Amino acid sequence: MPQVEARPLSDDELQGIDAYWRAANYLSVGQIYLLANPLLKEPLRPEHIKPRLLGHWGTTPGLNLVYTHLNRVIRQRNRDFMMVTGPGHGGPAIVAHTWLEGSWTEAYPNTGQDEQGMARLFKQFSFPGGIPSHVAADVPGSINEGGELGYSLSHAYGAAADSPELVVACVVGDGEAETGPLAASWHSNKFLNPARDGAVLPILHLNGYKIANPTVLARIGDEELTSLLRGYGHEPYLVEGSDPAEVHQALAAALDACLDRIDEIQHEARATSPTRVAWPMIVLRTPKGWTGPATVDGDPIEDTWRSHQVPLSGVRTNEDHLRQLESWLRSYRPEELFDDAGRPVASVLDLAPGPQLRMGSSPHANGGLVARDLMLPRVADYAVPVKAPGAEDGDPTKVFGAFLRDTFVLNPSNLRLFGPDETESNRLNAVYEVTDKTWLANRRDTDENLSPEGRVLEILSEHTCQGWLEGYLLTGRHGVFSSYEAFVHIVDSMVNQHAKWLKTINRVGWRRPIPSLNYLLTSHVWRQDHNGFSHQDPGFIDHVVNKKAEVVRVYLPPDANTLLSTMDHCLRTRNYINVVVAGKQPQPNWLDWESAALHCARGIGVWDFASNDNGDPDVVMACAGDVPTMETLAAVSLLREHLPELRIRVVNVVDLMRLQDATEHPHGLPDREFDALFTTDKPVIFAYHGYPWLIHRLTYRRNGHDNLHVRGYIEEGTTTTPFDMVVLNNLDRYHLAMDVIDRVPSLGTRAVSTRQYFADQRTRHRVHVTEYGEDLPEVRDWRWTF
Amino acid sequence: MPQVEARPLSDDELQGIDAYWRAANYLSVGQIYLLANPLLKEPLRPEHIKPRLLGHWGTTPGLNLVYTHLNRVIRQRNRDFMMVTGPGHGGPAIVAHTWLEGSWTEAYPNTGQDEQGMARLFKQFSFPGGIPSHVAADVPGSINEGGELGYSLSHAYGAAADSPELVVACVVGDGEAETGPLAASWHSNKFLNPARDGAVLPILHLNGYKIANPTVLARIGDEELTSLLRGYGHEPYLVEGSDPAEVHQALAAALDACLDRIDEIQHEARATSPTRVAWPMIVLRTPKGWTGPATVDGDPIEDTWRSHQVPLSGVRTNEDHLRQLESWLRSYRPEELFDDAGRPVASVLDLAPGPQLRMGSSPHANGGLVARDLMLPRVADYAVPVKAPGAEDGDPTKVFGAFLRDTFVLNPSNLRLFGPDETESNRLNAVYEVTDKTWLANRRDTDENLSPEGRVLEILSEHTCQGWLEGYLLTGRHGVFSSYEAFVHIVDSMVNQHAKWLKTINRVGWRRPIPSLNYLLTSHVWRQDHNGFSHQDPGFIDHVVNKKAEVVRVYLPPDANTLLSTMDHCLRTRNYINVVVAGKQPQPNWLDWESAALHCARGIGVWDFASNDNGDPDVVMACAGDVPTMETLAAVSLLREHLPELRIRVVNVVDLMRLQDATEHPHGLPDREFDALFTTDKPVIFAYHGYPWLIHRLTYRRNGHDNLHVRGYIEEGTTTTPFDMVVLNNLDRYHLAMDVIDRVPSLGTRAVSTRQYFADQRTRHRVHVTEYGEDLPEVRDWRWTF
Repeated sequence: MPQVEARPLSDDELQGIDAYWRAANYLSVGQIYLLANPLLKEPLRPEHIKPRLLGHWGTTPGLNLVYTHLNRVIRQRNRDFMMVTGPGHGGPAIVAHTWLEGSWTEAYPNTGQDEQGMARLFKQFSFPGGIPSHVAADVPGSINEGGELGYSLSHAYGAAADSPELVVACVVGDGEAETGPLAASWHSNKFLNPARDGAVLPILHLNGYKIANPTVLARIGDEELTSLLRGYGHEPYLVEGSDPAEVHQALAAALDACLDRIDEIQHEARATSPTRVAWPMIVLRTPKGWTGPATVDGDPIEDTWRSHQVPLSGVRTNEDHLRQLESWLRSYRPEELFDDAGRPVASVLDLAPGPQLRMGSSPHANGGLVARDLMLPRVADYAVPVKAPGAEDGDPTKVFGAFLRDTFVLNPSNLRLFGPDETESNRLNAVYEVTDKTWLANRRDTDENLSPEGRVLEILSEHTCQGWLEGYLLTGRHGVFSSYEAFVHIVDSMVNQHAKWLKTINRVGWRRPIPSLNYLLTSHVWRQDHNGFSHQDPGFIDHVVNKKAEVVRVYLPPDANTLLSTMDHCLRTRNYINVVVAGKQPQPNWLDWESAALHCARGIGVWDFASNDNGDPDVVMACAGDVPTMETLAAVSLLREHLPELRIRVVNVVDLMRLQDATEHPHGLPDREFDALFTTDKPVIFAYHGYPWLIHRLTYRRNGHDNLHVRGYIEEGTTTTPFDMVVLNNLDRYHLAMDVIDRVPSLGTRAVSTRQYFADQRTRHRVHVTEYGEDLPEVRDWRWTF
Repeated sequence: MPQVEARPLSDDELQGIDAYWRAANYLSVGQIYLLANPLLKEPLRPEHIKPRLLGHWGTTPGLNLVYTHLNRVIRQRNRDFMMVTGPGHGGPAIVAHTWLEGSWTEAYPNTGQDEQGMARLFKQFSFPGGIPSHVAADVPGSINEGGELGYSLSHAYGAAADSPELVVACVVGDGEAETGPLAASWHSNKFLNPARDGAVLPILHLNGYKIANPTVLARIGDEELTSLLRGYGHEPYLVEGSDPAEVHQALAAALDACLDRIDEIQHEARATSPTRVAWPMIVLRTPKGWTGPATVDGDPIEDTWRSHQVPLSGVRTNEDHLRQLESWLRSYRPEELFDDAGRPVASVLDLAPGPQLRMGSSPHANGGLVARDLMLPRVADYAVPVKAPGAEDGDPTKVFGAFLRDTFVLNPSNLRLFGPDETESNRLNAVYEVTDKTWLANRRDTDENLSPEGRVLEILSEHTCQGWLEGYLLTGRHGVFSSYEAFVHIVDSMVNQHAKWLKTINRVGWRRPIPSLNYLLTSHVWRQDHNGFSHQDPGFIDHVVNKKAEVVRVYLPPDANTLLSTMDHCLRTRNYINVVVAGKQPQPNWLDWESAALHCARGIGVWDFASNDNGDPDVVMACAGDVPTMETLAAVSLLREHLPELRIRVVNVVDLMRLQDATEHPHGLPDREFDALFTTDKPVIFAYHGYPWLIHRLTYRRNGHDNLHVRGYIEEGTTTTPFDMVVLNNLDRYHLAMDVIDRVPSLGTRAVSTRQYFADQRTRHRVHVTEYGEDLPEVRDWRWTF
């Protein structure tokens, strides 16, 4: 790995940078320890110390170093920078820096750049009612939480996309680097177009330790590490040391070299045509807990895992610890850094970039502020004509694909489609009429739809797709993630963290709501008959509805026009996680455009064309999801044929949250309206797309809940036919019809033979399917005819 | 990348190997297409073709090649091999091979090595009632499902651990290689001890394409790829080509070189002391869909993504396609490979290893067959003495740590502990008295508890930990995964797949139940007050209970002795996913050993010491989880002090599945017993560890369900104090007591002022905590005294 030999800093510059770094370090230690006496105007006493010491020192000095040096190059180059902070628990560093540069006070005016403000800054850290110990949504300039690790680099690439002037410096922790999502995301550089997109500068910070262990990358030797990073497509520059003056010079030189190289790459790509080159990156090897206590109670602390959290833990009761803390704090010479009123001195303040360029005020990092709404084509123009409900088939995702295609045309630089190699298989390929898949790696003549200019991002890593999309949304752009339903569980934990971030956006006043995270789950549980058991899991909905109601929406459009209407709506929203589950296979069109738009606006409603209850049903047949809707309507037609006296009401649910209590979810239906739809005393046979108990969990407070009988996926079925899938899970038309008969005793004796007939149909089907491998024609070719 | 120049195969050997490969390819294509006429005794007609063509050819010839060549080295070296098949949809290949070698017929006797058996083999593939298109639990010799991708390499390392004589050949697909879990797992070689463990031989199969895209690793050039693999700690050997004879020679030579090198590494490590070296691996670059149709309808198929699934899709209706299929099948010259009765000819059969060594019969891959039960120390010896309920504190995980330590001593080679750098922080460090953390990378003098011989595996990748553990369990050994509760969501989707695998073990007769997957979630939602919002998520339980009831168990032991009893039980079980949530912080010991063991055996029960209902309660206070139990008992003591006339029954739940209906879960309590505990008409205030609605979902069928009022985590709270966490989520003692007052109207007017008193205590607390940052002494020092 090359080390740059230049020493670009003059003595003055070096001193200035070191002072700035010391100021940040001082403010960091202050946050971890101090409840009062922020300027050390008097000797430290136990009552100045927080009662519970909760914070992490280990990673902090390294982050402070990077931020300080980035300030230098920002001022020098007068260029837009963001910093993505990957290492866990790096909160004190970025909080300190944003306060120093003034962006913290802008976001939180009661925490000014004075003694009282400093005291508040210190107290609130890891304190009840205050802020967490990692870089979180509370921290200006941040788009990445240092809690659950591994997403920094994919966030950085998402942020850089379509922002050609931006440089995203991304500090990757060597602990974080062991995670799968981070390991996969190094290859993001094959999807970054140096002409169209901004730059990402990864800074791998090897401080050597995690919580209680060394890190892998710090212990494989420089040769293997260099080889690895080159294999990832980078040219690494090594900065290593523990002498501050030396490291300052080395880091400044490395940053200059990297940024010069980035300029060169971009200039070349923009002047000619974009190709892939080895992007520069930095490996920064400095001690964990650098400049903190070297030893405490005889144990080595600095440069070991013991500096991970709070190096001196007994300061309130142990006089030695207290004195050691005081001299540690004073080692930064705060009296040179802050004036008597607690304000950073001018020579320090001068080193921060101006209000336009300081990283804590980056508009990119407060994406809601800069997001432009999408220009959407007139959605009605894409609707499929429906002469009669169920008379013809449509391909929902294909229909939406055309709408999405034209949306790409209207929004050439702030919309992307993400997916793990499934856009084609999910039938959204109309988008390839107007754009390609981004691809900077080698190409062959036989390749199709690959180019550096593509706006579709496909890599076989749901983690990377999700991380890119989050980075893109958090910086104020729009996107759709199209995935197999079962495998979106791969990003369950990322969704958790994003939901928490969205909740925090709503809580901190200065952040503005960002474009919603839109999932289109098109290869769903009922149409994985060819892929089998491993591809069948509808539980993502269950996972998502546990999140705060204010940020979660779930839609199950039953056909093409309802999918169109739903997606048109989702693309207009902000600060939600929209989960849309819809089929990619041909299936009946039920509603014409006008009915579809109305039905989606209501979210739930009676389907009059299928009902014969005249306001007084014997049974309510409810359905949510495309396949359950079709099976329900098929059951209704069977029942109406065989038991014409039975009064059936069909209720279709598009917006799943309508089922919940109005006090639990903003979309929740008032009880009166719920009762009017479902009755309070009639049996309700509910055919649901996913795990049936979710419907019970959503409706347990409803009046008619005890009459609710839900069918859904019960982990049965594997490779088989589409209809056999529903049979194996008791969601098929015959079983639903039998459920009705079982619950409407007034039907009398005729129903017994009808029930037996339905049961026999199930048996006939099973015999046929296992022998011939396809569904019986009366099922395959079934059409709603009433 | 070196290519080995030797040509180790004689002409006879070469022909034999090619014939074996052709036989496997023929059997693979047959599975995808044929319903009848398996030996092509007559010209192909449409009715010989399956009505729905569901299968994947693309990856198959490469997998067939590797399996064939592994057979050669197995016979030559007379050594134990397993093959882990990473690429998706590789089912036809491994099914074909196991049938050829005889292991398929051993598992499925009605699919014999004859014409009828071959016809059955073909029909069942991707057919209703048959087997899926990927290598799954149905396939003998497999421990890895090719459905959700990315876990092959970590499974391989888990399988190799503690099996010194075993070589695990792991084919990694180049699509799969893009996933996070796979990318992270390359570093597993730093955790493999060449003296104690077996070897893993990764074979990266670059066939170049995924579903509709090229793969990243196939398009970065040989130099970068070589650099990457060296950076992962491997010495790669390149085998490349499309001429079968050339590739046979090259692959044979590369395998010889790799296995010689593995012998050398192991010999050296076993003779001296284990150190880390660059393990050999193979990069196999052959065309996707090799030997299949070169073009179809004018489009290139072989060596493009178009060969991913079914290259000829119109065979039933398109005469050209049918003829093309027939000549494709005949190109393998089946008449030379199978006799008239459909049995593979002797010259083919001779190339398969004998029954002891053929990979489809590997006892490692049917772990339940070879698993020895753990030797467990007498658990009562580790119990903490409890003079009176709640009188003293205990550290549950620390108490269990001692038991686990001694379990390690009794089981020196079939037990491992897995975790993402949290064993120490989760207070299980007693284990370090008898073992270390496995570490083969560089070490420093200041390191602690690291050695090649360690039995604790820590890497900051939940995916890798989970993959290793699954591989270890699937090959018949035992393990515990200790993780932060919030971050175990990272492996949600892996848990899904493992649960599906366990269900399939129960279904296919020849697999034996494997040791259970045991989760100890110790840093749970209520004790993340220092780590904040991002670390707070109890939803893993919700995720797991959606899986098949026969494989899922959830336990919430409320103190040290109940945790001991629970873990002692879990370590004895097979084929379950056991989720145990327990605290690592000091907390009251409630039950002495005898009571704890009895309570855990029942799974749910009245706590008489805390109840004063004399069989006729005014209210039932139920609790599940350590913190909810403490808050409930604190609420009870408040209520008994302030409202002594109130008759309270306390019910504690350890085994969460007891709440469910007996028809829904094998642990479900019969209704009579449930009613006896909870009553059918009295209010039940239920304090639950996780999201409250899960309790409603589990109990919605119960008689008293409408009286149930559940408190739990509602996504509130961040960095604060432990007690403030419960306050913010309305789970605190005061709120629970207020809930009781609100629901027992018979309490009369005195209760009004008591209620106000409790409400005031909550306010006092909040004021104090936000000012001083710690809980009020009466909460901090609270003790059960009744």
